[in-house]
Amino acid sequence: MIDADLVKEAVRQRKARSESFLGLEYLRFSDDFKEVPRGTALFQDTVVWGYPHIGRIFMLEEGLKEQFKGPFWAEEKVDGYNVRIFRIKDRIVALSRGGYLCPFTMDRLEDFIDLTFFEENPDLVLCVEVAGPENPYIEESPPFVKEDIRMFVFDIMRKNSKDFLPQREKLKMAERYSLPLVEVFGEFTHEDIPTLKKILLKLNEEGREGVVFKEERGKRAKYITSYANLSDIKVTAKNMLQLPAEYYTNRLLRLVLFMEEEGIERTRHLYEQLGKAFIDGLFDAIEQFKRERKVYRTFRCRFHKKENAVALLDLLQRTSKHIQVVERELRREGNMWVLTFDKVFLNMTGLLGHLLGGGLVFD
Amino acid sequence: MIDADLVKEAVRQRKARSESFLGLEYLRFSDDFKEVPRGTALFQDTVVWGYPHIGRIFMLEEGLKEQFKGPFWAEEKVDGYNVRIFRIKDRIVALSRGGYLCPFTMDRLEDFIDLTFFEENPDLVLCVEVAGPENPYIEESPPFVKEDIRMFVFDIMRKNSKDFLPQREKLKMAERYSLPLVEVFGEFTHEDIPTLKKILLKLNEEGREGVVFKEERGKRAKYITSYANLSDIKVTAKNMLQLPAEYYTNRLLRLVLFMEEEGIERTRHLYEQLGKAFIDGLFDAIEQFKRERKVYRTFRCRFHKKENAVALLDLLQRTSKHIQVVERELRREGNMWVLTFDKVFLNMTGLLGHLLGGGLVFD
Repeated sequence: MIDADLVKEAVRQRKARSESFLGLEYLRFSDDFKEVPRGTALFQDTVVWGYPHIGRIFMLEEGLKEQFKGPFWAEEKVDGYNVRIFRIKDRIVALSRGGYLCPFTMDRLEDFIDLTFFEENPDLVLCVEVAGPENPYIEESPPFVKEDIRMFVFDIMRKNSKDFLPQREKLKMAERYSLPLVEVFGEFTHEDIPTLKKILLKLNEEGREGVVFKEERGKRAKYITSYANLSDIKVTAKNMLQLPAEYYTNRLLRLVLFMEEEGIERTRHLYEQLGKAFIDGLFDAIEQFKRERKVYRTFRCRFHKKENAVALLDLLQRTSKHIQVVERELRREGNMWVLTFDKVFLNMTGLLGHLLGGGLVFD
Repeated sequence: MIDADLVKEAVRQRKARSESFLGLEYLRFSDDFKEVPRGTALFQDTVVWGYPHIGRIFMLEEGLKEQFKGPFWAEEKVDGYNVRIFRIKDRIVALSRGGYLCPFTMDRLEDFIDLTFFEENPDLVLCVEVAGPENPYIEESPPFVKEDIRMFVFDIMRKNSKDFLPQREKLKMAERYSLPLVEVFGEFTHEDIPTLKKILLKLNEEGREGVVFKEERGKRAKYITSYANLSDIKVTAKNMLQLPAEYYTNRLLRLVLFMEEEGIERTRHLYEQLGKAFIDGLFDAIEQFKRERKVYRTFRCRFHKKENAVALLDLLQRTSKHIQVVERELRREGNMWVLTFDKVFLNMTGLLGHLLGGGLVFD
């Protein structure tokens, strides 16, 4: 458990807040506070720790040598959103990275995960990446999820503990319950770096995000392909003002260091892709604004229960910053409910309104 | 003059500081403070106001219609550094935008400006852009200055006043003293916007920075070519961490809005130029770091007097943030002294050292 004085202090400083949603009440850490990570949730007698930050290496070879002394595992890092799934009061729930209960994930759980896992392991927490073109949060999706979403387990935690199950125990559990794991490339040592370089080059060519390296128990580090960095730029350029500008400079640096490490040539094609990523996104925004006086992107996702779609809209409307969430349609399609909604990017909309109207900027 | 209480308060808040350099003592506003702009200098009985911020329009047509009701002048905005030149205690001195006395500019004044101007007009201040490949401050230079530097007068102020001379008076002064003016394209109204678009397109093709629009007396606004935005990215990418990340997102947006306004097609060549601007600069930095364990750029400039070169180095070493200034050589060449020095980019050097050594980053 977490020390009571620390919790009180976090509440006083508004780093922890009461949440009441989907019939559950809990305390949510909205920011990192001392040793407690953002997204940590306190239920009556249970703490579910927030998923920790994982450091990034920018150079594969030097990074692995510097960060890992013994053997380490390599697993795919899937480009989706991160949830922690567990049982509380006879319900199976999913918390987003920020510690919100996610009605979409909860609605779709049974399609991907054998829920007997939680009956037999009520003290365990599955850490899952939800990815695919029809998710309500992020605009990118991995190439191997062509429609809807899929779920990928990448860690198992224990309630009331910050620690993860050791890798071999996690693999056994996954096998026993046929959990949909992320791709595990295997256990490696420094000797295998040439093999890992080949794996990364292949992931890059296939448009996949990258790899997380993990000791059997303990240290972790991630490493991202240049494809993923380019894709991040391309997808977000339309809403460039929403993200901190460092988002872009950071990705540019990572992109170039990946190329350098993997010996990828600077070709005209690559230059062109990068330029296009920035320019086309911004043109899209301008053209959309001229047509409709707002800059937005449309999301679509499928639910079993209508009430979960309504709850998701409520959640997004309450928690989105600088984004207006507007429902377009919620209708039955086969045996599912399909929700379509827009995220209107208010910063970009406001700025383009000012600039295209001839406004002055002091910068 | 400036109210004495305001000055005291600025000093207390460390927004104004005493400077003693080149035998002169004065108070320098190091930041904007209330109505006093950064770079304002208080000598015993004279105030030289800081050069004000000029707002930027992102759309030519809408911007001119919105910002100017009557006629306005259009002048070239030259890509250099801004100084204010005036007489104080029988010396002619030059203050940088930030309010530092610049020994380089002062050394070279007589090569470009007829100093009888100051004898006959001791109360006037020339606002001058110093531009060219051999300047100690900025890495870009206009296409029409092929070597060394040149000076371009663009405004005349009066001591102890924030106001500029009206445009026609400035032009007369420039003629009388053969001052080297920036190119003045003429006086225009909204009717002339097609002509102005053509001028901007031509400046863009020639690799020139842009235009400042000025009422005869009063309002001003600037407008920058997409060439200049691309060039800013290209030149600074090597030292990407030195500048706020917004420097880049801002220029990307300006670039795209210029293209949109001027009907410039999105070609593969343009995409390629932008991608290349980012990638090549970063590669340069990485390769230089691998070779020399530091990221730097070499500057070179010419002086009449050796002591001014020494004073410039002293100034740069005292005032550069996150940059180490290292002298390479100061030697006689013909009848000039040529100073060569490096600016070592400490942020980029430190980050690359960490990343290339396999360091972990939490972002």
